[in-house]
Amino acid sequence: MGQRRTREITSADNPMLKLVRRALAEGVTREGWLAVEGPFLLEEALAATERSVVHSVLVSRTAVDKFRDLLGRLPRDAEVVQVPDRLFGQVAQTQSPQGIAALVELRPDDWETAVCRSDALLLVACGLQDPGNLGTMMRSARALGATAVITLENTVSPFNPKGVRASAGAIFHLPIFCNQAPSTLFAGLHAAGVSVIAADRHSPSPLAQADLRGPVAILIGQEAAGLPPQISREANFLLSIPIRAGTDSVNAAVAASIFLYEAARQRQFRY
Amino acid sequence: MGQRRTREITSADNPMLKLVRRALAEGVTREGWLAVEGPFLLEEALAATERSVVHSVLVSRTAVDKFRDLLGRLPRDAEVVQVPDRLFGQVAQTQSPQGIAALVELRPDDWETAVCRSDALLLVACGLQDPGNLGTMMRSARALGATAVITLENTVSPFNPKGVRASAGAIFHLPIFCNQAPSTLFAGLHAAGVSVIAADRHSPSPLAQADLRGPVAILIGQEAAGLPPQISREANFLLSIPIRAGTDSVNAAVAASIFLYEAARQRQFRY
Repeated sequence: MGQRRTREITSADNPMLKLVRRALAEGVTREGWLAVEGPFLLEEALAATERSVVHSVLVSRTAVDKFRDLLGRLPRDAEVVQVPDRLFGQVAQTQSPQGIAALVELRPDDWETAVCRSDALLLVACGLQDPGNLGTMMRSARALGATAVITLENTVSPFNPKGVRASAGAIFHLPIFCNQAPSTLFAGLHAAGVSVIAADRHSPSPLAQADLRGPVAILIGQEAAGLPPQISREANFLLSIPIRAGTDSVNAAVAASIFLYEAARQRQFRY
Repeated sequence: MGQRRTREITSADNPMLKLVRRALAEGVTREGWLAVEGPFLLEEALAATERSVVHSVLVSRTAVDKFRDLLGRLPRDAEVVQVPDRLFGQVAQTQSPQGIAALVELRPDDWETAVCRSDALLLVACGLQDPGNLGTMMRSARALGATAVITLENTVSPFNPKGVRASAGAIFHLPIFCNQAPSTLFAGLHAAGVSVIAADRHSPSPLAQADLRGPVAILIGQEAAGLPPQISREANFLLSIPIRAGTDSVNAAVAASIFLYEAARQRQFRY
């Protein structure tokens, strides 16, 4: 395979194996490296050359042949560890393990580059609890031209394994600022000249009538409760998706995606 | 509570209890009645007076007081069965059972009323496999003015418990035609003068440039593979959501919701 650092582990008690198992369950290692399973997410990590660094790859014996090409494209100093299929199965967290997993470092993103720009389109998750919803939002954010995803304190981690899978690799490509304190965040957005827009199902102002062409941040609240008043208060505008009378709302990831779509449409899909 | 038919079951071997347990696991009874858990879905079933009939309610002893008002609003001939909390826990399929479950009959929907109309807006799930996605689509369909949801053969059932939960009650309100053979369905749509539109990520025609104000059916394909060619071939138009270069697609439920939003926007949100 040409890797300089390929080794084999055969004991379930090996510390490296324990580390990978825990990282796959929690989504991140102690250093904050992302732990991902399957060739698709590893491909996406490799494709995001400017943002992600693949440090370690765990591969089952049978999968070595199947993923020979992929393994050949790893960075020179990536560590490759081969394990018996049985051990891989013990480490894997997915229902049908595909025999390959990796630890990937995401480089810190630059706030100025992502936020302080005339076409800023920011998605701010405020209290979301479902990792699948956040992952789906990241996928839409990347596809529909968002310049960053931001999460407030008390929001599910974007590095949750379910969220990473639902992001379909977007997590490797999209600037992400996590766990922000509201006061600091909103001060920063206002200072950068970004319009703060709350997606508020009770607002009488339909989003299609608002001008979303300038720099905007879209706030999406918690699945059932929506945005808390102290967060909505920070917004320059409250906008809603006009829905049929007698219905309550759409799914949070769907709402986020519709706001992003409307912004992209007004910007004539120039990404 | 004023119900004429309230009885108590204390044995786990009771046939009624076994029936409810199996129905909650599978989503439907043998007669095709929907089995749902929790007060929210039961409220939605009761609200859909023209379309759904609540036949049986299972309630845990502790929950009787909590849901007294809800139980008081059941139809006169609904059967109410009270069980010890321990037995309810054995029957429930949710992680934190709320002590109330119901069997609900959905009346058959009328094709003419849902489809043969100048403002028809139909969502057709073609091969979708994730029940959560289908449920999220049903929720969006109801909120954004769809006149029916249709599923092709080989598509996950809309009555799957996960889908019903994700639908947030939409399943009780929205006409649904399941498990349709493609040839019959497309003949019926064409005969009704409905434009058939395939959501096709590879189409060069952006959906915002198409006229979605007349009667339309929107075809959404399987999560990973999209629409098979023999289905796309039946469409009058192939349209795409213009996404950022280098990205593959958005989530299937998100795509469906964006198509519905665009149609609703063009129709000026007159539902």
